[in-house]
Amino acid sequence: MKIGIYGYGNLGKGVENAIKQNNDMELFGVFTRRNPDSLKLSTVGAKAYSADDILKYKKDIDVLIICGGSATDLPHMTPALAENFNVVDSFDTHADIPKHFENVDSVAKKSGKTAMISVGWDPGMFSLNRLYASAILPEGKDYTFWGKGVSQGHSDAIRRIEGVIDARQYTCPVESAVEAVRRGENPELTTRQKHTRLCFVVAEEGADLRRIENEIKTMPKYFADYDTTVNFITKEELDRDHSGIPHGGMVIRTGKTGAEGENTHVIEYKLTLDSNPEFTASVLIAYARAVYRLNKKGDIGCKTVFDIAPCELSPLSGDELRAHLL
Amino acid sequence: MKIGIYGYGNLGKGVENAIKQNNDMELFGVFTRRNPDSLKLSTVGAKAYSADDILKYKKDIDVLIICGGSATDLPHMTPALAENFNVVDSFDTHADIPKHFENVDSVAKKSGKTAMISVGWDPGMFSLNRLYASAILPEGKDYTFWGKGVSQGHSDAIRRIEGVIDARQYTCPVESAVEAVRRGENPELTTRQKHTRLCFVVAEEGADLRRIENEIKTMPKYFADYDTTVNFITKEELDRDHSGIPHGGMVIRTGKTGAEGENTHVIEYKLTLDSNPEFTASVLIAYARAVYRLNKKGDIGCKTVFDIAPCELSPLSGDELRAHLL
Repeated sequence: MKIGIYGYGNLGKGVENAIKQNNDMELFGVFTRRNPDSLKLSTVGAKAYSADDILKYKKDIDVLIICGGSATDLPHMTPALAENFNVVDSFDTHADIPKHFENVDSVAKKSGKTAMISVGWDPGMFSLNRLYASAILPEGKDYTFWGKGVSQGHSDAIRRIEGVIDARQYTCPVESAVEAVRRGENPELTTRQKHTRLCFVVAEEGADLRRIENEIKTMPKYFADYDTTVNFITKEELDRDHSGIPHGGMVIRTGKTGAEGENTHVIEYKLTLDSNPEFTASVLIAYARAVYRLNKKGDIGCKTVFDIAPCELSPLSGDELRAHLL
Repeated sequence: MKIGIYGYGNLGKGVENAIKQNNDMELFGVFTRRNPDSLKLSTVGAKAYSADDILKYKKDIDVLIICGGSATDLPHMTPALAENFNVVDSFDTHADIPKHFENVDSVAKKSGKTAMISVGWDPGMFSLNRLYASAILPEGKDYTFWGKGVSQGHSDAIRRIEGVIDARQYTCPVESAVEAVRRGENPELTTRQKHTRLCFVVAEEGADLRRIENEIKTMPKYFADYDTTVNFITKEELDRDHSGIPHGGMVIRTGKTGAEGENTHVIEYKLTLDSNPEFTASVLIAYARAVYRLNKKGDIGCKTVFDIAPCELSPLSGDELRAHLL
């Protein structure tokens, strides 16, 4: 199957690498709003095209992976592209998913295309695990912890403070809270009790470090509700020690069974990722396979990870899956 | 939906309790090969029936959960019952799954019923996690560890030794092996390096303990390939400290992404279960909901967990799932 990539940032590059790991796929090309000649693809035989020309390649692309941002790109890009393509996106603004779903669904049903939204790890694999675990243990409670990992949004928020040259923010789960959850104690946890925020900041020479630290720690929404640690380091240290984009986290559900609820069970799904965008890209590509197959069967409209039978993600046949993985 | 239970051992009793946690289900009755008057159900309004009479209740049961053993019961029970019922079983002899699938599938396709086999946690939830993780990280390797948990088969094997009154065997993962896997080292592990076996044995008075210990440790297939520890205890200690049926384990896959495979990712799914049969029963009941819905849609034949879209397990609507769990 031929894959198109729409947008060539970290996520788009991750998709390009992920395609190379799957023999049943090839990259047709990358579509960009920048000058296509400025892009250096790593795939032999694939080309960069202007996003404006994409309709010319309607018949050449089986599934288009849309690698835009959730804030301003995907809300209009995904419905627009679903008019002509089977698409997958990683829309991750949880509160706006129902609206995005409706928009994409109405377009895809009219165009006869299959569109998947909110594919990745959260939303995505974490959502799946919340669903499976809650269906199995209805009398229980689930918890999602993120990290240790880099939050781009929080890093950007620090960079906007006067006197800051660069910054990297890590979200960290509070280990004692995780342990209480694993023990089945079903604790009520405040925002502060679940996660801490760890910041590495490069300040301008002579900047007022105390003011910067205070501005970070009191920033509403981003930091004020958390225990935040601020470390000032040099640009060299930041580049040397904090250039990766690791992330991860866990979904834990504990629940009771038995005549009197006397037995406790813990279901835990945990991700430890060296590269957040590359892992997300790998999930996108597995679901691109499902989108391709669903569309061939005439199963059109908007889908999420909840709607896709697991076998559709694998290149193996049903016989092979039952013989080797069941 | 009305659920029937076929077989009333630990698993059947677990299913009875699990039904009570799900408002959209009720127990119609339990079918037994024993004298039905000897059964004491815990569900008000449900009755015990002779297994011989089950065809009389064809129209009263939406889904029948078959709670028999994999060795001798399920290979003939599931195909026979799929002639007249939508069924779910927990067939767990991994090597015989393809054959069992074929047998059940041909019957269910003729009868127009929907039949699910090998539902539980392994096969079942562990299989799902092997599939998802291998589809996402094709360049990787997965490992399944079991325990710490009670193996009924190994406990039974010890009980057959002369001079043994009772026994309980725990399968334990080797922590250093688990840690090496989590670190992404992709170790090659022998049977002995993955699990140890811990035995608690009650011997007859005057029995030759050294002979019993030796017979256990050298028993082919069951113990000879493992580091085995044998503890002799009293019947009172066994009943006091080892009467539960805990189990669990983990599926871990590590894989590489990036242009040069420079980034490592770890996906871990872990279960810690106070009661193996009750958790298995909870999984069976969640999939009974899916079987009911699939049959209503005309999706007949034999299915496994690989074939079922996750949304079919939940009592919530698509809108609710997207709004609250995605």
